[in-house]
Amino acid sequence: MQALAFDVFGTVVDWHGGIVRQGRRLTRGRKLKVDWSAFANAWRSKYGPSMDRVRRGELPWTKIDDLHRMALEETLQEFGIGSFTEEEKVELNLAWHRLDPWPDAVRGLRRLKKRYIVATLSNGNVRLLVDMAKHAGLPWDCIFSAETFRRYKRDAEVYLGAVDMLGLKPSQVMMVAAHQDDLRAAHEVGMRTAFVRRPLEYGDPKKKDLTPDPVFDLVVDDFEHLAERLGA
Amino acid sequence: MQALAFDVFGTVVDWHGGIVRQGRRLTRGRKLKVDWSAFANAWRSKYGPSMDRVRRGELPWTKIDDLHRMALEETLQEFGIGSFTEEEKVELNLAWHRLDPWPDAVRGLRRLKKRYIVATLSNGNVRLLVDMAKHAGLPWDCIFSAETFRRYKRDAEVYLGAVDMLGLKPSQVMMVAAHQDDLRAAHEVGMRTAFVRRPLEYGDPKKKDLTPDPVFDLVVDDFEHLAERLGA
Repeated sequence: MQALAFDVFGTVVDWHGGIVRQGRRLTRGRKLKVDWSAFANAWRSKYGPSMDRVRRGELPWTKIDDLHRMALEETLQEFGIGSFTEEEKVELNLAWHRLDPWPDAVRGLRRLKKRYIVATLSNGNVRLLVDMAKHAGLPWDCIFSAETFRRYKRDAEVYLGAVDMLGLKPSQVMMVAAHQDDLRAAHEVGMRTAFVRRPLEYGDPKKKDLTPDPVFDLVVDDFEHLAERLGA
Repeated sequence: MQALAFDVFGTVVDWHGGIVRQGRRLTRGRKLKVDWSAFANAWRSKYGPSMDRVRRGELPWTKIDDLHRMALEETLQEFGIGSFTEEEKVELNLAWHRLDPWPDAVRGLRRLKKRYIVATLSNGNVRLLVDMAKHAGLPWDCIFSAETFRRYKRDAEVYLGAVDMLGLKPSQVMMVAAHQDDLRAAHEVGMRTAFVRRPLEYGDPKKKDLTPDPVFDLVVDDFEHLAERLGA
């Protein structure tokens, strides 16, 4: 094995905590009260379905930044929030560029990078992933995005596209993710797979299925654990 | 301006010196005598024409690694060298993955990275650029390759593709290169341009045209000079 491809939202960074933190900052001192944990989960829940619309061809190719914005408008409506300015909405949408990493992520990636190529393989658009890496100090060797291939995970073309650009065979690349369907799609094309338990992805461990599919090659608690298991 | 896009071969790394160094190591202690400086320049001279064959559609999309290998076979023939094994030829072709940076490059990039997004925009394939960054310690935020867009510079699609993935306008991105035609193509699509003098690119300063086109926004001696000029 020569390279590791990482899912990002939920696997490397804590999107729930990051949206809550930045949302609270936005409404601090206002009369408006928002349950930002519920808001974050509602916003995020529109993510998969909106990509599916692109995958089915109902929407032309659309970056995550723009899918996030469409989903933000819907979520604001659902929560009955009508008082944010255009500027505030642009800023809130950019919260996805400024998510913080899980506490083990940077240290684990630094260890893994010494022995392997460490790359993103995320549905986030390139600029989002670049901003996030600069914000969070993520030491990527390479950024692969769905945008690179103009296809969203879980389409096989995304996984195989990254493997091809790395000049490797699928079995020489390990997909690392906190999401079982992502890993199953990687497994289907012949990649190796590591499941990272992230019980707090949705803020509440009861919301997350942590029983791993037995086809996964590795199951780890965090990236330092992954580095240990891979001898890095 | 928010981002800098760097040409790589000759601009960031010393390909001539790197091929000479690795070639000499290969023939050390052998009867075979090779003028590695002439060999490096002959090998490199086939690079532009081979990409032009792809650009004109005479060849299907072909990675630089494979174009380098085709050009290596021709160069070996021209130099009358028939004694390298397949393994040695594979290794020699990988010399392009292990080129050393110009002495100012890493320090300059580290300074520039604090203020700007620093990305490659190279005809080198992704794996080559990743290996080179790991070998040389180049702190890229993002690797853009002709391979990302399946078009070679100087096609406008490569420049505009990178600008689009950065979520910017052409005028917000500066192309940095030691090659005037690369910069002219970037200028044509509205990017800003910085010409870096690299008199030793071909080993001999007489082989390089260092009189810059007046359309370039900046002319600098090296990357530390560039960082100074850009206030980074």
